[in-house]
Amino acid sequence: MILCDVGNSRMHFLDNGTLLHLGFAEGLKRYRDRSVYFICVNGNMRAKIAEEAPGWVELDGTGVLKSDYRGLGVDRQAVSLAIEEGVVIDAGSALTVDVVRKGVHRGGWIWPGIASFMKAYAGISPKLAVEIDPDVDLSRLPQDTVSAVSFAVLAPVKRLVESCADQLPVTITGGDARFFAPLFPEAVVDELLVFRGMEKMIKEDGC
Amino acid sequence: MILCDVGNSRMHFLDNGTLLHLGFAEGLKRYRDRSVYFICVNGNMRAKIAEEAPGWVELDGTGVLKSDYRGLGVDRQAVSLAIEEGVVIDAGSALTVDVVRKGVHRGGWIWPGIASFMKAYAGISPKLAVEIDPDVDLSRLPQDTVSAVSFAVLAPVKRLVESCADQLPVTITGGDARFFAPLFPEAVVDELLVFRGMEKMIKEDGC
Repeated sequence: MILCDVGNSRMHFLDNGTLLHLGFAEGLKRYRDRSVYFICVNGNMRAKIAEEAPGWVELDGTGVLKSDYRGLGVDRQAVSLAIEEGVVIDAGSALTVDVVRKGVHRGGWIWPGIASFMKAYAGISPKLAVEIDPDVDLSRLPQDTVSAVSFAVLAPVKRLVESCADQLPVTITGGDARFFAPLFPEAVVDELLVFRGMEKMIKEDGC
Repeated sequence: MILCDVGNSRMHFLDNGTLLHLGFAEGLKRYRDRSVYFICVNGNMRAKIAEEAPGWVELDGTGVLKSDYRGLGVDRQAVSLAIEEGVVIDAGSALTVDVVRKGVHRGGWIWPGIASFMKAYAGISPKLAVEIDPDVDLSRLPQDTVSAVSFAVLAPVKRLVESCADQLPVTITGGDARFFAPLFPEAVVDELLVFRGMEKMIKEDGC
């Protein structure tokens, strides 16, 4: 089975157990004639897939995840479906946090992703065009620009996940997981999480 | 006396008690031949002022504020000088938080400002191109996109200021103060804060 998560900046494939991150053109070129189940949060790419890879089957997740959230992205539905209880931090183009208790999605929020944060800082002033330091000390007030920016991006993730998720297990996924893993020493980092959720969607949809 | 805070996107003047926010061209045109004390975090504008308004006097703040912070922007120095004890949230192009205890600057951090956050979200996906809701309920997990984005921008300000500043008084300044005032019902909103700090710089410099 081939699964594909179409994001805002790339396509992520799970091809019979092998994970590939491909640009849109490369992904379509390589897999257009194969049998692929996909989820998609990117309207432009959905149209392109319909045109270039009409055999692909889209999973929209409707009705599979229990949630009161209006307009929950299908990628967030998938990662939430993949856990029964816990918090998922998905660090991609956006940084999403979703809380699941007893199999029910309870809500969540959305930050810009690391690259987007860095672009925003650089756009304010060249002095703020710095790299995020994943090892910044969050226990003390920052004393320089790199720490001030890194603290601002990372401390909210630690503090808000801890305060909203209160003892729930944390799972981290997405291409920038390495920035957030040090914040949660007990967390599981699982780069295949979205695909586990997609497998549940397929099973429950009876595809 | 005329004071000017040259920011990353505008100039802010205090002209004998009257506050004006002007674009760079307009500010220079109106005040180029006047006697102006200014602070500046914008290298391009510093060069332009030297050329077009050579009579203006720059305050660089050196040695006035007690701080171990390396490279603290002169605008953050000014707002920190304006208080003896407390936390300053300055909501401009960037959103800075600075902590002052017993007249000594203890550190601080930098988020993108509201406009910059909104641009970052819109750049990730058109679905995230939403307005920040200053009245979002921070006591519950968000259940829609507007709440998810607004919570992500505002909750960290409330939580981190509260946890790092522990009972200190909060002062809010800057053009986007209205987004943050509802988070801190006890806070003072003071749009002239930076100018009070500049007055201290002038006094201590003996200008």
